[in-house]
Amino acid sequence: MDTKTLKTLLLSLKTGKTSLNEALSILKSLPYEDIDFAKLDHHRHIRSGVPEVIFAGNKKTEDIIHIANAMLEKSGRFLITKASEETYKRLNIRKAKFYPTSGIISCGDIKKKQGNILLISAGTSDIPVAEEAEVTASFLGNKTERLYDVGVAGIHRLLAHKELIKKARVIVVAAGMEGALPSVVGGLTDKPVIAVPTSVGYGTSLGGLTALFAMLNSCVPGIAVVNIDNGFGAGCLAHRINIMRRK
Amino acid sequence: MDTKTLKTLLLSLKTGKTSLNEALSILKSLPYEDIDFAKLDHHRHIRSGVPEVIFAGNKKTEDIIHIANAMLEKSGRFLITKASEETYKRLNIRKAKFYPTSGIISCGDIKKKQGNILLISAGTSDIPVAEEAEVTASFLGNKTERLYDVGVAGIHRLLAHKELIKKARVIVVAAGMEGALPSVVGGLTDKPVIAVPTSVGYGTSLGGLTALFAMLNSCVPGIAVVNIDNGFGAGCLAHRINIMRRK
Amino acid sequence: MDTKTLKTLLLSLKTGKTSLNEALSILKSLPYEDIDFAKLDHHRHIRSGVPEVIFAGNKKTEDIIHIANAMLEKSGRFLITKASEETYKRLNIRKAKFYPTSGIISCGDIKKKQGNILLISAGTSDIPVAEEAEVTASFLGNKTERLYDVGVAGIHRLLAHKELIKKARVIVVAAGMEGALPSVVGGLTDKPVIAVPTSVGYGTSLGGLTALFAMLNSCVPGIAVVNIDNGFGAGCLAHRINIMRRK
Amino acid sequence: MDTKTLKTLLLSLKTGKTSLNEALSILKSLPYEDIDFAKLDHHRHIRSGVPEVIFAGNKKTEDIIHIANAMLEKSGRFLITKASEETYKRLNIRKAKFYPTSGIISCGDIKKKQGNILLISAGTSDIPVAEEAEVTASFLGNKTERLYDVGVAGIHRLLAHKELIKKARVIVVAAGMEGALPSVVGGLTDKPVIAVPTSVGYGTSLGGLTALFAMLNSCVPGIAVVNIDNGFGAGCLAHRINIMRRK
Amino acid sequence: MDTKTLKTLLLSLKTGKTSLNEALSILKSLPYEDIDFAKLDHHRHIRSGVPEVIFAGNKKTEDIIHIANAMLEKSGRFLITKASEETYKRLNIRKAKFYPTSGIISCGDIKKKQGNILLISAGTSDIPVAEEAEVTASFLGNKTERLYDVGVAGIHRLLAHKELIKKARVIVVAAGMEGALPSVVGGLTDKPVIAVPTSVGYGTSLGGLTALFAMLNSCVPGIAVVNIDNGFGAGCLAHRINIMRRK
Amino acid sequence: MDTKTLKTLLLSLKTGKTSLNEALSILKSLPYEDIDFAKLDHHRHIRSGVPEVIFAGNKKTEDIIHIANAMLEKSGRFLITKASEETYKRLNIRKAKFYPTSGIISCGDIKKKQGNILLISAGTSDIPVAEEAEVTASFLGNKTERLYDVGVAGIHRLLAHKELIKKARVIVVAAGMEGALPSVVGGLTDKPVIAVPTSVGYGTSLGGLTALFAMLNSCVPGIAVVNIDNGFGAGCLAHRINIMRRK
Amino acid sequence: MDTKTLKTLLLSLKTGKTSLNEALSILKSLPYEDIDFAKLDHHRHIRSGVPEVIFAGNKKTEDIIHIANAMLEKSGRFLITKASEETYKRLNIRKAKFYPTSGIISCGDIKKKQGNILLISAGTSDIPVAEEAEVTASFLGNKTERLYDVGVAGIHRLLAHKELIKKARVIVVAAGMEGALPSVVGGLTDKPVIAVPTSVGYGTSLGGLTALFAMLNSCVPGIAVVNIDNGFGAGCLAHRINIMRRK
Amino acid sequence: MDTKTLKTLLLSLKTGKTSLNEALSILKSLPYEDIDFAKLDHHRHIRSGVPEVIFAGNKKTEDIIHIANAMLEKSGRFLITKASEETYKRLNIRKAKFYPTSGIISCGDIKKKQGNILLISAGTSDIPVAEEAEVTASFLGNKTERLYDVGVAGIHRLLAHKELIKKARVIVVAAGMEGALPSVVGGLTDKPVIAVPTSVGYGTSLGGLTALFAMLNSCVPGIAVVNIDNGFGAGCLAHRINIMRRK
Repeated sequence: MDTKTLKTLLLSLKTGKTSLNEALSILKSLPYEDIDFAKLDHHRHIRSGVPEVIFAGNKKTEDIIHIANAMLEKSGRFLITKASEETYKRLNIRKAKFYPTSGIISCGDIKKKQGNILLISAGTSDIPVAEEAEVTASFLGNKTERLYDVGVAGIHRLLAHKELIKKARVIVVAAGMEGALPSVVGGLTDKPVIAVPTSVGYGTSLGGLTALFAMLNSCVPGIAVVNIDNGFGAGCLAHRINIMRRK
Repeated sequence: MDTKTLKTLLLSLKTGKTSLNEALSILKSLPYEDIDFAKLDHHRHIRSGVPEVIFAGNKKTEDIIHIANAMLEKSGRFLITKASEETYKRLNIRKAKFYPTSGIISCGDIKKKQGNILLISAGTSDIPVAEEAEVTASFLGNKTERLYDVGVAGIHRLLAHKELIKKARVIVVAAGMEGALPSVVGGLTDKPVIAVPTSVGYGTSLGGLTALFAMLNSCVPGIAVVNIDNGFGAGCLAHRINIMRRK
Repeated sequence: MDTKTLKTLLLSLKTGKTSLNEALSILKSLPYEDIDFAKLDHHRHIRSGVPEVIFAGNKKTEDIIHIANAMLEKSGRFLITKASEETYKRLNIRKAKFYPTSGIISCGDIKKKQGNILLISAGTSDIPVAEEAEVTASFLGNKTERLYDVGVAGIHRLLAHKELIKKARVIVVAAGMEGALPSVVGGLTDKPVIAVPTSVGYGTSLGGLTALFAMLNSCVPGIAVVNIDNGFGAGCLAHRINIMRRK
Repeated sequence: MDTKTLKTLLLSLKTGKTSLNEALSILKSLPYEDIDFAKLDHHRHIRSGVPEVIFAGNKKTEDIIHIANAMLEKSGRFLITKASEETYKRLNIRKAKFYPTSGIISCGDIKKKQGNILLISAGTSDIPVAEEAEVTASFLGNKTERLYDVGVAGIHRLLAHKELIKKARVIVVAAGMEGALPSVVGGLTDKPVIAVPTSVGYGTSLGGLTALFAMLNSCVPGIAVVNIDNGFGAGCLAHRINIMRRK
Repeated sequence: MDTKTLKTLLLSLKTGKTSLNEALSILKSLPYEDIDFAKLDHHRHIRSGVPEVIFAGNKKTEDIIHIANAMLEKSGRFLITKASEETYKRLNIRKAKFYPTSGIISCGDIKKKQGNILLISAGTSDIPVAEEAEVTASFLGNKTERLYDVGVAGIHRLLAHKELIKKARVIVVAAGMEGALPSVVGGLTDKPVIAVPTSVGYGTSLGGLTALFAMLNSCVPGIAVVNIDNGFGAGCLAHRINIMRRK
Repeated sequence: MDTKTLKTLLLSLKTGKTSLNEALSILKSLPYEDIDFAKLDHHRHIRSGVPEVIFAGNKKTEDIIHIANAMLEKSGRFLITKASEETYKRLNIRKAKFYPTSGIISCGDIKKKQGNILLISAGTSDIPVAEEAEVTASFLGNKTERLYDVGVAGIHRLLAHKELIKKARVIVVAAGMEGALPSVVGGLTDKPVIAVPTSVGYGTSLGGLTALFAMLNSCVPGIAVVNIDNGFGAGCLAHRINIMRRK
Repeated sequence: MDTKTLKTLLLSLKTGKTSLNEALSILKSLPYEDIDFAKLDHHRHIRSGVPEVIFAGNKKTEDIIHIANAMLEKSGRFLITKASEETYKRLNIRKAKFYPTSGIISCGDIKKKQGNILLISAGTSDIPVAEEAEVTASFLGNKTERLYDVGVAGIHRLLAHKELIKKARVIVVAAGMEGALPSVVGGLTDKPVIAVPTSVGYGTSLGGLTALFAMLNSCVPGIAVVNIDNGFGAGCLAHRINIMRRK
Repeated sequence: MDTKTLKTLLLSLKTGKTSLNEALSILKSLPYEDIDFAKLDHHRHIRSGVPEVIFAGNKKTEDIIHIANAMLEKSGRFLITKASEETYKRLNIRKAKFYPTSGIISCGDIKKKQGNILLISAGTSDIPVAEEAEVTASFLGNKTERLYDVGVAGIHRLLAHKELIKKARVIVVAAGMEGALPSVVGGLTDKPVIAVPTSVGYGTSLGGLTALFAMLNSCVPGIAVVNIDNGFGAGCLAHRINIMRRK
């Protein structure tokens, strides 16, 4: 509730247009329904397009369906990550779409795209995580481009695409195993680089911890890191940065 | 070397203005001194102001002094992180400045500041890391503001400063122990939030790993994380994001 | 065996009411059947209502059934944690009840409830663990209330329920991922807060270790922590604290 | 701001006793300066006696002195944990007291003690941590008793003191190495038991992690665990539980 | 080849009983077929009865069957650990026996038993590991006794069986969770105590690492520890110690 | 592009044989299409015979089939590691071969073998990993020999085969559990020894980390170590070393 | 208190020789002062010669001196492990002896030695830990022999001393780095082998964890393992086993 | 002892040239003093020039001096790693040389160098480890070249030196932090690449574990990895490979 609205309410009370009880009732709900932060929170949904998201990993299918329908009714859109095709079928919402590579179910994405987020994957096995970022960023209204399978084992594959790197506003790099690609990319650009470690590998890849730690220790200053396999988080972060253009 | 310059050179060769040997010599140095990426690399220094930085942690004092002087001569500026006051004294460069809280020695910072980066610390013990980010960001030409000692144990301390949070373009949050503050801040804004875990704590703080992992697992989507105690990296990342305004 | 009883026995021996062999037999069993601690142990069952509990996680179904029936016969009640519905069906005890959300089978709970334990969960995925605490505490004769899905990503959701927090005697907070909620709750109350880390999350949530360590490093002094996903333990601890009212 | 006060304010506005601007100013500051929680926070200090505490481990001596004096001025009391005798001397506050065993500096403890908290240590090396809990609890106005060096290697040493265990309201058990003592104590009582792992040991004691994990895995349900060497936290938790008597 | 045999051979060569080529052939095989250690190795099988054992955990069923039959032919006996009933059925050897609790298949155990090894388990879930030790020790010709479900949560249960502890020559204690029982047992006897951590538990039991580390950090000096769930190894070690009686 | 070629091009431009646009086009592609490294990369495939390899572990069957067919078309050969028999059947390429022990599908191996690589396994359970190295090395054109089941528990088994060790050029040793065999082998030879830790074992074998760390800490200087279960990598490294003979 | 004594007491009460109060007093102290275990505990000190031992690692010098003098007075002997020469000098007890290699101070060792314990070290850096075991075992009245610097890098060094191995009753093997030696020794004997991991090494030796885990995973069944650098524990365990001869 | 020598001995015995006792004495020492492996071991020193090396890290200065002098007398040469200048001064051997960057003391290196080993370091802080490899390899008679400070943050720095990479026979790459450089180098060559992780970095560099794991997970097949900071081991491995040329 901004100052102006509050002033109007108080004036309205003072002049008798609003009864004491009505004013009381409105003001009592302030701390949770109407304080600036709560507003800001709603505002954030509208402005930045990050809806509440359902992480399917730890939930039963019936719960996912229940929450998704509630969101659909309230805001007309939702995003479900780490979902299976079976959940998508049981969900049975016509305008929902399933992305098999990334395991995302989305509904109600923003049609008008802007900015330019580049998604890079080191190997073909890292593509599902890169795609999770891509679908998320696209859902939130960002333009995206893809550059896949350009890992450091053949550095010339990456160097051949410098134009793509140059024209991106934000770059998301998904890499498993030794997680070296974000360092190389970060050395080639002054744009924000978001590194997403993937759980690709075995033995001492430690389920992605090795790639994660390698990225956190990048010799290139200013690399942003998110959780293992967290393509969704990378997509949101890229979105938070990309929308700064408009200001 | 961009296309235009290359064309000019070739034309100049063709017309005899430049001798074959001169052209040969210029072109031979291309792969490492003049290819686009190398240029881009130099360009980055000029444009974004991130110079080569000296991490003093693993180096002998004489080596630090040697490298700093070389940088000074080449570019007129440098930044040394995790440095001691003794190193500063032995360095003995008049226009260099020592920041005791963050242990940074800087020389030649960009005077004209822009943008608005907010530095938040959870406790008083996290201030040195927040200050490392502040000095770095300031050195690179960014405007900064500070909001220190607003940890989650007394959530009202943070809530009292919502205006600061609202007006920031990028927010850096340094927190040790349970590392919960970036999640709370991230829920209050749609701006990019950079979380810096600190090694503050003991026992199961595991030298900052607990705060790091907590931040990577934030229930707020789109939090960027950097290495433990890496205020410098956070400052660079904030800078990479902040300079996007100009485009 | 308290002093008075012992004295009576000895007197009874001295006066011939009890034979030497009878007295001998009674006294010989002292070290394990009748020393104060053993009594205390039985007493504890009666007074605090914590029966032997069956942890189904590492046991075969037939063993669980065998032990449950033995307990039922001996004390008329039991609690089985981390159980499946299939076990419940095969158990086939009429007055036993199955709680599908928490995976508990209980039999013979104390009807008359007292005190007031508040169960809080950070996300919807943490509810099963919070419910395990709830069913346990309720089984042991405690009154409970629930406050679910109030994680730190939207701090206003928690702040809206301060009355619930104020009126609780003991608070149990179940949270996975970054495990930040107990710190925020602990800063809002002077009551004992029991933090239960859950294994909700992926990647660096490390199966709940991250939430656990975050809770142990809370910047709020005086948070009690239990094992990962150990809703049962949290329920028992809340019960141990709650029953102190009567003294 | 409770309903009654708010109603009075609105009535006062309606009737003209309070001007529109005054009411506006009061209501605008609600979310952060006057909500119940902020008040509650102040109330907590008064009621439960847990002042802001200074953890000396990560701070410079001059900073500690600065903060301690600020606290002294504001509230007339403070507690500094993990402090050295040198800090105590440089602090130079007459009514402050230094506890060399636990490394605590305290000032302004509550004279009138109540309740009964029992401090148990497994070995002599665990005494400093047990003492940290003792000094903390005593400072906050609790009666305490000590039972030291009763580890499980000679179980009869503990069994000989059952009366002490029986009469305690809350029990704090500090143990390093294998951390087994809280389990044994927890099996002998129905009171809340707070286990404090210590970093005593070497090799696979892993700086106290082994004792910590052992305590979290206690086969006795309802053991509260705090961070490694966190005697202060244990003292605060014991205090939170002990003061429930008064209600 | 001992000195006497060697002397006889050389004498036999010198006197012409053995030809040069025969002696050469015998002596050339010394380094690997006949050196004392190799003999000793064979001797060990005969004397101590520890045959080659098949660990089924990492092997295919057909391989297990193949190796078991080879052993049967060579030595008339074998032991298969971590085996399933299905393997037992497919193995189809009449005199082989399957132990479902411990998952052992044995064939040809030593009938005449000696000594006295006591197997203790902390909880009922630890029994399979204790049984693995029991079956192994029994197979190797040792007398055994069992004392199960006497964990530290009710210390009187253990104390009630002091006679069993007193009369044992070697004691094996299997315990999961906090792994405290070996410390308590070790404080009650001067016999060798072999601690076997089990993977019973969840969360911070870390698959048995917590129990293992607790046992290695026992405050009782002289506890032998083996690998997690390694009942077989504990049985062999108990056997190595128990057979010392005869000397 | 070497100096001579560049000079020729420039001369050709100067003399008009090559047009300005042609020269421009050639020179612009230098950094990524024609630098020696890219060429060298292609060269590597031809010369050393290490094709792109498909790691089946993280891929869907349809993707594996797609990539394998693409490789087949491009280079006439491929290698798929950690593959199942089902994948082999669905792949349905006539000249492809499936190795069930190591889970490799190969196609187009080099017929003419050279050098001499010795594969050693500690136990029978380590054979699949040793075989993965064998199939890889053989595929790349190396002669191989096998020495399996010669672990340190019976050191004479290894000592009996010194001739095999002596005549090898490179030795690959696969061992799980305590990973001691490479140290013993490394002490018996001055040839390069490649240690491959396997995930064989349970409990504290930590999925092969224990064997890995043991090998990295070998008291024998000059042991090469590869990732856990990485028989393929060991085979490639042995190949890189073995082909040095020809130079 | 055995049955006979108890019967005598009751009879004595019945016949009036003992008054009711005397009998009451005697019986009441049973659970803690006179149960067999407490007696047994004292007995253990006398019989097995394992006195209370002072671990100096976590204690202040003044505390060590205080405890040592108390022990000296009570039992005439003590052992201090991980002690410095300075502590020895400040202790200033004439008949105490300092062992600089192992850092042990001993006083009152048993002169008459028996049995035969063999101490083996892998490298020269492991000798201090082996010596800690030697001094401990010798102090407790065991005969010892040493075999140092026979690590697996040169397996012939160990094989040259098979007679020493053959004649030992118990073998203690101290090894750091890869910890392979106990496996090799264990394969050469059927005696109990006690493996002591040492913290010798760097990097992935992880302060001895690698050697520890390697030993726990020995492919030789029946190896006893103790904590890292715990020569004292190994000496006690060897003693527990060695004294079995007398029975 | 080869067949021919053995035959001669037996013949000599048969013909009376050698007495029975002499033959017996010679043959009895076979298993340890004269078996081929022991000979091979001595041979190795002569042929490959890897002397026994002293790791100074865990040793007292007096012990180092003692061992070094013994080696000097026996073989005229030695190498001491991780040594301080103070040790060098106290050693006081004229022909010994101290390398301050790598902390090596060497004496008696092979003058005639051969082959070509390239040492690469990622950053300036990794140079000490690369130098340890260089000094070791040089000491053993290998030619070396250096390429320092060419980390992946500026990939053009490495690409500019492709000629050096092309002409090397073996390449050692020392890198800390994210450890990415060996992957990039390994993709540019078909020569054996030896990766040495260094402990350079802080926070999640985990003392070099991150670099180590990254290297073990290299997406380039056939990278050899050694222990953290183990420049010496890398030098020995490079030597083992480099000397293969001569065969």
